[in-house]
Order: sequence, then C-alpha cells, then structure tokens
Amino acid sequence: MRKIVFLLLLSLPIFAQNQDSVMIRRIYNEILTNGEAYQTLNYLCKKVGPRLSGSEGAKKAVDYTKSVMEKYGFDRVFLQDVMVPHWVRGAKEQAYILDGSKKINVPIAALGGSVATPKDGIKAEIIEVKSFQELKNLGVEKIKGKIVFFNRPMDPTKINTFDAYSGAVEQRGQGASQAAQYGAIGAIVRSMNLVQDDFPHTGGMRYSGGAMIPAAAISTNGANLLSEILKKNPKTQFYFKQNCETLPDAPSHNVIGEIRGSEKPDEIIVVGGHLDSWDLAEGAHDDGSGCVQSIEVLRALKAIGYKPKRTIRAVMFMNEENGLRGGTKYADLAKQNNEKNVYAIESDNGGFTPRGFGIVGTEEQIKKITQFNYLLAPYGLAEIGKGGGGADIGPLASTGTVLLGFKPDSQRYFDFHHASSDIFESVNKRELELGAASMAAMVYILDNLK
Amino acid sequence: MRKIVFLLLLSLPIFAQNQDSVMIRRIYNEILTNGEAYQTLNYLCKKVGPRLSGSEGAKKAVDYTKSVMEKYGFDRVFLQDVMVPHWVRGAKEQAYILDGSKKINVPIAALGGSVATPKDGIKAEIIEVKSFQELKNLGVEKIKGKIVFFNRPMDPTKINTFDAYSGAVEQRGQGASQAAQYGAIGAIVRSMNLVQDDFPHTGGMRYSGGAMIPAAAISTNGANLLSEILKKNPKTQFYFKQNCETLPDAPSHNVIGEIRGSEKPDEIIVVGGHLDSWDLAEGAHDDGSGCVQSIEVLRALKAIGYKPKRTIRAVMFMNEENGLRGGTKYADLAKQNNEKNVYAIESDNGGFTPRGFGIVGTEEQIKKITQFNYLLAPYGLAEIGKGGGGADIGPLASTGTVLLGFKPDSQRYFDFHHASSDIFESVNKRELELGAASMAAMVYILDNLK
Repeated sequence: MRKIVFLLLLSLPIFAQNQDSVMIRRIYNEILTNGEAYQTLNYLCKKVGPRLSGSEGAKKAVDYTKSVMEKYGFDRVFLQDVMVPHWVRGAKEQAYILDGSKKINVPIAALGGSVATPKDGIKAEIIEVKSFQELKNLGVEKIKGKIVFFNRPMDPTKINTFDAYSGAVEQRGQGASQAAQYGAIGAIVRSMNLVQDDFPHTGGMRYSGGAMIPAAAISTNGANLLSEILKKNPKTQFYFKQNCETLPDAPSHNVIGEIRGSEKPDEIIVVGGHLDSWDLAEGAHDDGSGCVQSIEVLRALKAIGYKPKRTIRAVMFMNEENGLRGGTKYADLAKQNNEKNVYAIESDNGGFTPRGFGIVGTEEQIKKITQFNYLLAPYGLAEIGKGGGGADIGPLASTGTVLLGFKPDSQRYFDFHHASSDIFESVNKRELELGAASMAAMVYILDNLK
Repeated sequence: MRKIVFLLLLSLPIFAQNQDSVMIRRIYNEILTNGEAYQTLNYLCKKVGPRLSGSEGAKKAVDYTKSVMEKYGFDRVFLQDVMVPHWVRGAKEQAYILDGSKKINVPIAALGGSVATPKDGIKAEIIEVKSFQELKNLGVEKIKGKIVFFNRPMDPTKINTFDAYSGAVEQRGQGASQAAQYGAIGAIVRSMNLVQDDFPHTGGMRYSGGAMIPAAAISTNGANLLSEILKKNPKTQFYFKQNCETLPDAPSHNVIGEIRGSEKPDEIIVVGGHLDSWDLAEGAHDDGSGCVQSIEVLRALKAIGYKPKRTIRAVMFMNEENGLRGGTKYADLAKQNNEKNVYAIESDNGGFTPRGFGIVGTEEQIKKITQFNYLLAPYGLAEIGKGGGGADIGPLASTGTVLLGFKPDSQRYFDFHHASSDIFESVNKRELELGAASMAAMVYILDNLK
C-alpha cells in the first residue's frame, strides 16, 4: 500500500506536465485546423480598411471587432470610451527634387501630427544630415530658411530589425523640432525601411516647442536619389506640398471581450493589440494581426472547452499610433476600479512566424514564467525571457502587471510598417495562426501559475 | 613575471572566444551590408529561369554560376561531368471534372517522370482515397479501369511543415504504381501544399514495376472541389491529357568553386545547394537560394580577408529533383580521388529566416560542433543539434563526412515548392542574406575545429 501511495505521489508532477503538454497541443491543433484569425483579418483589412484614430474606419473597426466577439459568445463584450487625437492627411502630397531646372518627382507622405505646408507648398534649398549632432554643428547659419533632409538609414547589421528602427526613428519623431531650432522651414525624413523601394512610410512625430514646420517621409529610393543629386549639386532645391490637419479630439473606444475566470475571476489576463492603424494601407501587420490573434486566443480556448481559472480578456486598444490614449485609458480605469490585471500580453510586431516572448517583471516573476519554457520549445518559441512588453500595455506596469510582448520574427516587419504595402496579402495564414496559438499557449501557462 | 604568464594563460581562451565572436560579426556585417546573393538570385531566376536537368536552362545555369565564381576570383572553379535524366513536360496539361454533363476545368501538372496520357487524353470514373491501405481495401473490383484520386492533405498541425510533407508525399512518389496494381488507368494527386489555392505542385514520382500509368498533381482548390463533387455524385468522371516524355539521359555538370585551405588544404568543407529546378517556375526557394547562398559564403569569407585553414567549396549539385545524379557523382568522385570531405552543409529548405542547423554524425562529432552554439545564438540560430543533412550531400555519409542541413523557418516553404509561384519575388532579401551569413558563420566554426 505504501508503495502505491509513493508511486502516485511520484507520478503526479509528471501527470501534470503531460496534461499541460496535451492542452497546449490541443490549442495548436484547434488554431491550425479551425483557425478563424485569417478570415477576421481579411474582413478588417478589406471591408474596414485603414482606421486611424478619429476616422470612419476606426469607428467601423470598433463595431466590427465588437460584433465578432459577440458572435463568439464571450461572457462579456464591452467598450471603454476614450477621446483620441484626430489627424487627417487631406489631399495626397506632392514633392519633387529641383536639380537646376530639372524636376524629379519623388514619393513622400506627411508624418502623422505634422502641420500642412502653405497652400502653394514650400520650395527651398535642402540640406542632408545624418544626425542631430551634425545638425547642431551646421547651426543656424547653414540651416536657416532651408529644408532639412534626415537621411540616416536603419542599420542593416542589426539582427533584430526593431533595434535598427530604434536607432533611426528619432529622426522621424523629433527631426522637425530639432531642425526648426536652427531656422529650418521643413523636414524630409528617410523612410524607416530596410528595403530600397518606392514606398514612403509615415509614422508619428511630435513638436517639442518652437516653430511647427511641416515634416514628411520620403521613400528610401527617393532618399538615395536625393542624396546622390545633393552630392553633385549642393544647391539642389526641394519642393513639397501637404494638406494635413489636426482636428479636435474625437470620441472613440477600446473594445474588450472576456471569458470569466472560474476560480479567480478578479484576476485578469489581458491579451491585446491595437485597433487603430495608419491611413495609407490596411494595417494588416500593424496591428490588425495583433487584434485578430487576441480574439482568436479566446475563441480557441472556448472552442476546446478550456475553463480558465482567471478572467481572460482580449483588448483592442485604440490610438497606439498617435497618442496611446487607449492604453492609457485602460490602465487609468484599471486603477480606478481596483482591477487586478496580473498579466498582459501584447502582439504588435506583426503576424510573422513566432520566436518567443519578452517579459517585463521582477526576476522572480520572470523565472516563474520561464520555468515552463520547455512546454513551448517544441513550437519554435526559443526566445522567452527578460525584456519586451508593448506600448499599449505599458501604462499597466504601474499597477504591478507583468507585461509580455509576443515576439514574431522581425525580418520582414519594416518592409510594410506604416506604408501602403501593409495589406492583407502580406500576411501568411500559418504564420498568423502560429502567433495566435503561441499567445493562447502562453495565456494557458499564465492562467495556471500559482 | 610568473603572474604575467599566469594572466596570459588565463586570458587566452577568452581572447580566442572574443576573436570568434568578432569574426562572426564581421561575416554578418559583410553579408548584410555588401551582400550579393540577392542579385545573383535575381539573375538566376529572371535571366536563366527554370532549369530542370537536361534543359537549356540547366546548361545556362551551369555557365552562369561558373562565371560568377570565376569573376569572384575563387582559387579554382571547375565542373564535374554527370549524365542526368531528361524528362520534358511538353504542351500544357488539360483537365476537367465531368459532373454529369457539366465540365469544370481544374489546374493540373504532370508529375516529373510520369508518362503521357494517350493523345486524346483519358476519361474515366475517378475514385478518392486517402491512403494506400484504403486503396488496398477497395481492391481490383472497385479500382479497375478508374482514375485514382489521392487526396490526403498535408497535416496542418505539424509545426515543421517538412514533417507534414513527409506524411503525405508517398502519394506523389508511389501513388501511380500503387494504383496500377489494382488496375487503375491514371493517378491524380492532391498538391503538396498547405494553402488552399490554384497552383498545381509538381514533383518527382517513380514507377516501381507494373503498368506505367500517367500521374498528375491537382491544385488544392481543385482537389477540394473534386472531393465535394464526388461526395454528391460518386459516378463523377475525370478527364486529363498530358504530353510529357522521358528523353535519353543528357550530359550535365556539378559546378564547384573553392578557396584553398592554408593549413589543411586536403580537408574539404562543402557548402552547397542544387542547381536544377522544376520547370514550372524560377526555382527561387528551391533551390536557387541554396546555390547563391553557397557562392555568397565564399565571396564573403574572401571579402573580409579570411584565410581558411581547410579548403572551402561551394558546390552546385545537378539533378537533385529527379535523380540525385549530381550528389551521387560528387561522392563517387570523392571516393575515387580519396578526397577528405570532412564537413558538408546543404541549403535546400528555402531562402527563409534562419532557425538553425541539423547535424548528422556521431554523438562526439555533434558535440564538437554544438559546443559553439553560443556563438550563433545571438543571430537567431537557436536550433542547432542532431538530425538533418540534405539530399545532395547524403551520399557523402558513406565517406565519413559530417553532414549539416541549414534549417530556415519552414512555414512558407510549401506555398511555393515545385509550383509556378516559386519566383524571385517570393524571396526576401534580408532572410536570404541571413541564411548565407548563418552558413558562412558555421563554415567558420567548422574550419576552426581541431
């Protein structure tokens, strides 16, 4: 008898481990066989389309994702009100290089948040810089009355392209205000893109005091051409005209669906992406993928009959791209309502093949999660460890939430990011589904942590 | 003085490690900054095009890759003669489902090695099976005089798509001869593809005695449609006509470039892919990528001034797709000439983002290599271990060569494999380059093993 008890005790953890493996296998099977994320993304891209904060598209996206989650019969689907910035591009931009008397058209796109040019556009000498230090060295004397051309490329030797992005994006975010300090009248920024092509990549910019000068992104091919021409003729002029405008803040919403926990309903696990997207394309990778994956996590857990211990929430955050109002509002309401958001996963790096998760928390919290890495290793998730999180879930950090960023492979992300190439066809069905399955498996692990 | 000696000794291994890291970083920087694999692939796809064994394209591919390696000034560039099978597709296939009096055209492609149909095609009842066992159970009575439709899909729940391929490809390779045993007059095989689309995927098949009946692949959409119609009307007929033919064996070549080793020139490290490709497309992933990556390995090592200890060879094997004559010939000549091919790396799983290497060798040999995994981990190569190799280098196993298969991410491979979608545009420049850099880094590690 004693022997039997001993054997039972010995086999319990093994049994539990096996059960975890079996559950995770079931999650993957469900999503890879009956997955619906791809068709949801198709609708979001093709029927809803671009959905910048404040736009008609954003409204439609709120209604659509709400209706999808209601159709799935989640325990509760609701909206959180949030006021968002409302920037509009207006008529398509025009730009050309004026090399002597030769006009060469180049593709540009106003940066989000930028002011318009005067009605007739701006024409002026253009001067190339690679850094803010170079700008400072040139100073007012060389910059005043000119357009500044920020042309430091993303570094192709960075293996993770987000590192290359981090090393270049200050030009887009702060370039205009930096240049304005020295009397520049416009800013043209090389697109945040590692490929040499004709797509201008827009993205957020901010004025930090001083003159508000118009700023636009130029395609990488356009930037290379302009740089070549400037080498031969430093007196080259540039013309651009853009018609963008910031309207009054508009009402909008975070969209939330949840499955109520059976044992600890007050403890919430968030899985989310952001519902808004730049106006130039369909926001397929950024961040339609993260939204449909988050919904798919709940759909799949429900489909396999899993009863979560904690409450699982899919959150479509509004306004990540140009304000982060949705993420901020979610965290504010969490504090106000004394909600315990114990874990939050964000998917906002594209619908690519999964690599892992980055975790932001104490060493102890990270260890608690990573002890189960062996469960996810068979699914190609080799990179689970410290570092990561996400913009929308960031504000939750102050409430003690452990933050996790889903990490898909980064190589192709900036081919599409904020450009008109970010369309449904750029997403691979299996890659998208494997991402959703990875997130669902991680939710399962988090739900079962003591 | 003693203290200094002690410190020197202590710092030596650290210095060596750092040197390895620095060299590998230089390899990646060279390939990610000055890489030429993508433009070589462009030429191979767009100017050479399809290059099935025995074709004009294959001849051009031999000349082109030889000229590229000569232009790079490798120490020696040479050809190995090899006779190869010469199968030709002839005029485009035709096929339709005959549902009562309704004709529905469907896309098919003759399987490589298949015989033609009679001139007027074949029209007969078609019967669906999912396995050879099912075929056996039906037997002569149910099969005789019919076309057999092999419709077992690749299993989408396999995480590595090559596992899904392995589980389904017998239908393509042996289906015709299996069906002929029971009196079938033709075989139609569901394409080896996880996506539901309109591309028929060709590929090798073999007759193993018995009647030689014509065999073709049908697109996955076509297969799904046919299966639906058969459910409603089991008397559905199928018509197909194909014009393929096996001509006498043709002369061809393996193409080899090498950099001679400075310390152990008689020990050879092979890095290779196969130069032939199916006739329907440009052979971009299969296996133009492996070829241009192999050339790039030598170009990059030379460009950074690395003097290899062993001889490094880039080998473009001929005829992997329908005969493996090139790989066999390379190994035969190695034996004949008492060559010491100590290590061989093959890249034949597409030009996708790198995951790792699979190694075939003794436990000790594998350990000798994997002790340096930490050098490659920062580059996303988390999966380096037992298992792998490659078809072309396979015959070298009997000479004691340690075999390594480069493992890129597998998710998108079968979207393109053997179909008209395998074109240059399906390859991402960075992913291709990272593959080449991973292979070059592994060559560096192998070259420095004791």
